[in-house]
Amino acid sequence: MTLDLAAIRDAHERIRPHVTRTPVLAGGSLDAACGGRLFFKCDNLQQGGAFKARGAANAVFSLSAADAARGVATHSSGNHAAALARAAQLRGIPAHIVMPRNAARPKVRLVEAYGGRLTFCDSTQEARERTCAALLAETGANLVHPFEDERVMAGQGTAAVEFLEDLPDLDVVLCPVGGGGLLAGTAVAVRALRPAARVIGTEPAGADDAARSFHGTTRVPMTDPRTIADGLRTTIGEPNLALARRHVDDLVTVSEAGIIAAMRLLWETLRVVVEPSAAVPYAAVLEGRVAAAGRRVGIILSGGNMDLDAPLPWTRTQPSP
Amino acid sequence: MTLDLAAIRDAHERIRPHVTRTPVLAGGSLDAACGGRLFFKCDNLQQGGAFKARGAANAVFSLSAADAARGVATHSSGNHAAALARAAQLRGIPAHIVMPRNAARPKVRLVEAYGGRLTFCDSTQEARERTCAALLAETGANLVHPFEDERVMAGQGTAAVEFLEDLPDLDVVLCPVGGGGLLAGTAVAVRALRPAARVIGTEPAGADDAARSFHGTTRVPMTDPRTIADGLRTTIGEPNLALARRHVDDLVTVSEAGIIAAMRLLWETLRVVVEPSAAVPYAAVLEGRVAAAGRRVGIILSGGNMDLDAPLPWTRTQPSP
Repeated sequence: MTLDLAAIRDAHERIRPHVTRTPVLAGGSLDAACGGRLFFKCDNLQQGGAFKARGAANAVFSLSAADAARGVATHSSGNHAAALARAAQLRGIPAHIVMPRNAARPKVRLVEAYGGRLTFCDSTQEARERTCAALLAETGANLVHPFEDERVMAGQGTAAVEFLEDLPDLDVVLCPVGGGGLLAGTAVAVRALRPAARVIGTEPAGADDAARSFHGTTRVPMTDPRTIADGLRTTIGEPNLALARRHVDDLVTVSEAGIIAAMRLLWETLRVVVEPSAAVPYAAVLEGRVAAAGRRVGIILSGGNMDLDAPLPWTRTQPSP
Repeated sequence: MTLDLAAIRDAHERIRPHVTRTPVLAGGSLDAACGGRLFFKCDNLQQGGAFKARGAANAVFSLSAADAARGVATHSSGNHAAALARAAQLRGIPAHIVMPRNAARPKVRLVEAYGGRLTFCDSTQEARERTCAALLAETGANLVHPFEDERVMAGQGTAAVEFLEDLPDLDVVLCPVGGGGLLAGTAVAVRALRPAARVIGTEPAGADDAARSFHGTTRVPMTDPRTIADGLRTTIGEPNLALARRHVDDLVTVSEAGIIAAMRLLWETLRVVVEPSAAVPYAAVLEGRVAAAGRRVGIILSGGNMDLDAPLPWTRTQPSP
């Protein structure tokens, strides 16, 4: 995998007309508890409610006219699916989307709103990949994998580029880790633009495949994820893990209670809607897994798509993974 | 009342170090339903979670050193209280705050967090004013009225100045109306900077004193407000009404169901936390009280302080006023 800053800069130019330059919010009263300065890059306020708009737009607008005409396809638990449907709609081509039957409802509604052609399957990685392969054979569409795709990783890296443009002196950059697309893009961008900054991936302890893979010698598949963070249940990709080994400083895990506490604080104090996956990096600060004292800590808020008709997680008697 | 653009520009310079320049979010998928282009000035993401930080900071930092030393005092249902406590804390002077006993809990917690000295009273306008007068006599503090104060109105007008700096070609600017501080500041700023734009105040039908006063000949007091929008239950101020008569194009009302529906859509689609009062202007678009089709509509989101431990309004079986 040759992902580098040049590819991320190209992606940034390519997607500029199609995505939002998201705002950065200061931590305000959240700073006191950790002794550092916190800054939040609000990609939950991105088009489609997630950073995924970046990678999907880069992949779709990288296609030649002839390739694009055959459409695109993917499998995803949600935010990449909606982002790909949106990018395809912007380019006027079909998007075939495979989603697990247990995907969060608002994410399914978003795919529909962007005109995506939906196929549901079981929630295992194997079922997703098999269903998607059948679709590709049938339609001739271009696969845009949610994270094992250099165009996607390059697009995801544009969030970190904007973050460092706004705040060139961050000491640490944190992001959540699912398949590792955001982690890879972020790590390559930060390593090139601000070599002194640490890049730390954060993961639920109940879906800690990336942390175990990173700290071990082989890639550990995630077979039975148990976490409220529905965006982080997938296994980290092989090229993503390779890039993480090269460019990422550490990978840490957080508890479910920490994710919910972090989520509540972000809603209350920053007044933004973040989904559980997006609260994971701040949970790592709250739980002391990342040293924030005296540092300028940049946190990428990855998404804000929530089922708002369900009770909020912190008002449930029992957090449900 | 001589409120003019120069006073608002002075306020903007004065408060710049103490408040956030809040982001503007585009309406995205909310646009289709109204046929116009919507833009949201996110003062729910302001320091203290409300535009009130602007007026309070302008009032506190306008005081001479000798006056400031005696501290400040006010009565408020919440967001102005927190904003004044915050501004006083920044200047290192005491803030005496009178709040109704039924004020929203997160707003009380915010005042405490900013070091405000709290006195509780009954929720009537009369009780608030009497309790505050007693405090002023006792402490010698400077009254910073939540809206009948030119320094406060000038500060609130800075949100509209920023809005028009970002989007100089808005056709309509909407804001909620409680005491009329935001309305007065907004109307004066927009009238001076973009005379062609319409300024429309929006109010809950269950607290429609300002609309009745504006469309009638005398100021109608609000004696029994019935609305979920706790920030808009006060009677519009006399100077505020006078400025509204001179500079505001219309004042419209919305239903409680409309407020709740608007709030839910803003949470889900913009992914920001807005309190009920802040959803009132968008409710006016949703309910067709403001003609949005073909227009560029600017909406000031006034605040985002919510009790997140209570069920969200749209999940309650019975909306409670």
